[in-house]
Order: sequence, then structure tokens, then C-alpha cells
Amino acid sequence: MIDPASPRLYAYHRALREASAEGCTTITSEGLAARLGGTVSSTQIRKDLASLGALGRRGCGYEIYPLVTQLELVLGLEQDWRIAIAGFGYLGHALATFITARESRFRVNAIFDRSPAVIGTQWNGLVVADISELETLVQRADCNIGILAVPAPAAAPIAQRMAAAGIRAILNFAPATLHLRAPVAVRNIDIAGELSMLTHALTAFGAQAQERA
Amino acid sequence: MIDPASPRLYAYHRALREASAEGCTTITSEGLAARLGGTVSSTQIRKDLASLGALGRRGCGYEIYPLVTQLELVLGLEQDWRIAIAGFGYLGHALATFITARESRFRVNAIFDRSPAVIGTQWNGLVVADISELETLVQRADCNIGILAVPAPAAAPIAQRMAAAGIRAILNFAPATLHLRAPVAVRNIDIAGELSMLTHALTAFGAQAQERA
Repeated sequence: MIDPASPRLYAYHRALREASAEGCTTITSEGLAARLGGTVSSTQIRKDLASLGALGRRGCGYEIYPLVTQLELVLGLEQDWRIAIAGFGYLGHALATFITARESRFRVNAIFDRSPAVIGTQWNGLVVADISELETLVQRADCNIGILAVPAPAAAPIAQRMAAAGIRAILNFAPATLHLRAPVAVRNIDIAGELSMLTHALTAFGAQAQERA
Repeated sequence: MIDPASPRLYAYHRALREASAEGCTTITSEGLAARLGGTVSSTQIRKDLASLGALGRRGCGYEIYPLVTQLELVLGLEQDWRIAIAGFGYLGHALATFITARESRFRVNAIFDRSPAVIGTQWNGLVVADISELETLVQRADCNIGILAVPAPAAAPIAQRMAAAGIRAILNFAPATLHLRAPVAVRNIDIAGELSMLTHALTAFGAQAQERA
């Protein structure tokens, strides 16, 4: 469901905006590769950008401004997106605040929880609803992206309900595997898993694996 | 710096714990692959587990309990880890609470912020310190993992200071590229980037890329 090129496209977008903020108006594929810390080759960058119709000029590189505009169009960042958040503990709350503060195109239009202590409280003028109202409110608020910040056992059933209510993309912070059918796109962020990769790297086993690699 | 197998090892660990919680005592590589939603082949699973010295018996599969124990050893999950968090806004606060509530092996031993409104406040009995005290407190609290929940421009300098103070692994939530030398392991979680991959999938461009794939 997720275009394998999209992490790169987003990385280009971020690096180009940084370059623009520093006063650059053009950039070469080699310069862009350097800004990405060598994680993507300049050949891959030229290929990806050519697939968007952007051709750099030899010796001058790419014009940054039209390239940023084109990437925003491709990444959907010029559109408004309406988000529903399930689970409004510390993590859900942090995500709502973080996302809306950083990205004006992302609006949180519905928030759900199952705890009576949280239901009925307000965030940014929005009342936290009972999770039982998910279908009604997701449709009424026309949400197209869902965020799961619920405990693992609750994640799969709520994802199914979001999909049935018309949500087409889910960002899942619960450590649970979601089995959703197309056309729902899913990205998983497993914070405990990310920490485990770090602790693995710090063990003797991880050190050995790195030496072999 | 990160063993490319570690995301799989952690996925196995999680799936095996789920199977164990459901009452299973053995599992085949095919059964484990099914629990992972088909993201890893049973051949890859057998290869990874064999590299840990775990051999399944034909028709019976693997004993779950010793395999979980071995994976915890390899992933470093049987050790205690001491975490320093830089940036104690909503996200830093949520991460501290989320991580310590879920994983008893992870302890938050130092918290830093630069805002006078946050410095001196308490979380779980721990006083939020001025970021200027980073080196002193990281060393005194013997922290080995750092979490960055700071704005993008602050991330790279703080990461450098953490590394100089002896931190060997960093989980970075700031949308900034860190250029750290070995032996510091880094994992980046870019929430806005993850959302962009979803919005890209929902655009006509993303739909076309999926059809071509």
C-alpha cells in the first residue's frame, strides 16, 4: 500500500526546505545526497526526481522552489487532512499537540477514548468522545486519517472500525500487527521496538552482528 | 550501526510473547510467519533463529519459552537501561510515561529542557534539569540511552553533547539528520514524515506508484 519511494521523497522535501531556509535557490543531486548524510545516492536522487518530471541542469543542479512545490503536490502536503485519534492518554495527547503545531495541513477533527475520566474532557475546543461513537463521528467529521494510540489488544478492532467508517490511512503506535485489506494504508511506529534495536546494538550480540555486516 | 536483523528479532520476540500469552508452548516457523502477517518468510525466520542457535524440530517447531529468553538476551531486554530525555514538552512527557509504564527494564534517570517554565518541575520524583547540566547529569546518572524530543535545530548539537557525555544510543524524534560517529547507534522516528507517507499513498501519485509496483 505504501510507495517504497515515499520515505525518500519526504527526505528530499525536508532537506530542500532546509537548504531553502539557508538561502540556497539551487542544489545539485550530490549536494542533496550530502544533506541526507549519504543515506541515498545521487544517482537514486536523480532517478527519483526524473520520475517526478524534474530534470537538473548539468553543473547547476535543480531549482529548489519548483521542486519543493512539486514534492508537496506528490506527497499530498498541499491538501488538508482530517485526523481521528483513538486513545487520548499521554501519547495521544502529545501526538495531537505535536502534529497540529508542526503541520498546518493536519487537523485533528475527532478524538476517542474509552476511559470515563477522559471522555467529555476538551482539547483545543474538541470534546473527547466515547470510542463507541467512532463510526458516527468519523463520518460526520469526514476524517481520512486515523491515529492509534491505544493499548495493543484494542488496536486491531479499532483499526477495523476506522476502515469500515471510511478512514483510508492509519498511523499505528500500538505494538500490534494490523491485518487490514486494501485500500487502507498503514504505517507502524513501535517505540518499544525502536528502543530494543538500540539496546540490541549495545549488547555483545549486536556488536558482533555489526562486525560481520 | 544497527544490525539489519534486529527489527525482525524484535518482531519475533513480540509475536512469541503473544503466542505464549494465548497458551501456546511451541510454534512452527510457518506459524510465526503467519503471526507476523506475512511480512517475513518462514525461511528467513528459520535462518535468523538458527543464527541464534535455536533449531526447531520438524513437525513440532520451536519451544517458545527458551526462544523468548534467548531473544531477550540478544536484544538486551534482560538488562536495565538508563535513559536521558532531552525536551520535556508534550512529546517528551508522553514518551517518559509510555516507556516506563510498558517496559520495566527502561528507567528514565535524567530529563532536560531549556524552558524556565519546565525546568525545576517534577516527573515521577525526578526534577527536570536545565539543558546546560546535560554532561554533568548524564554522567552522574550513568545514562546509556538518549531520547531527543526537541525542536529540529536543537537536535544535532544536543546529540553531540550526549555522545560526548558517554551515551551510546539515541532515539531521535526531531526531524533532523544527526551526523554522529561510531560507536553511537541512532534510530530516527519522524512522525511528520510517517504522516507524509500516508498522505502520499492517498494522493493520485501514490495510487499510481502502487499500481506500477
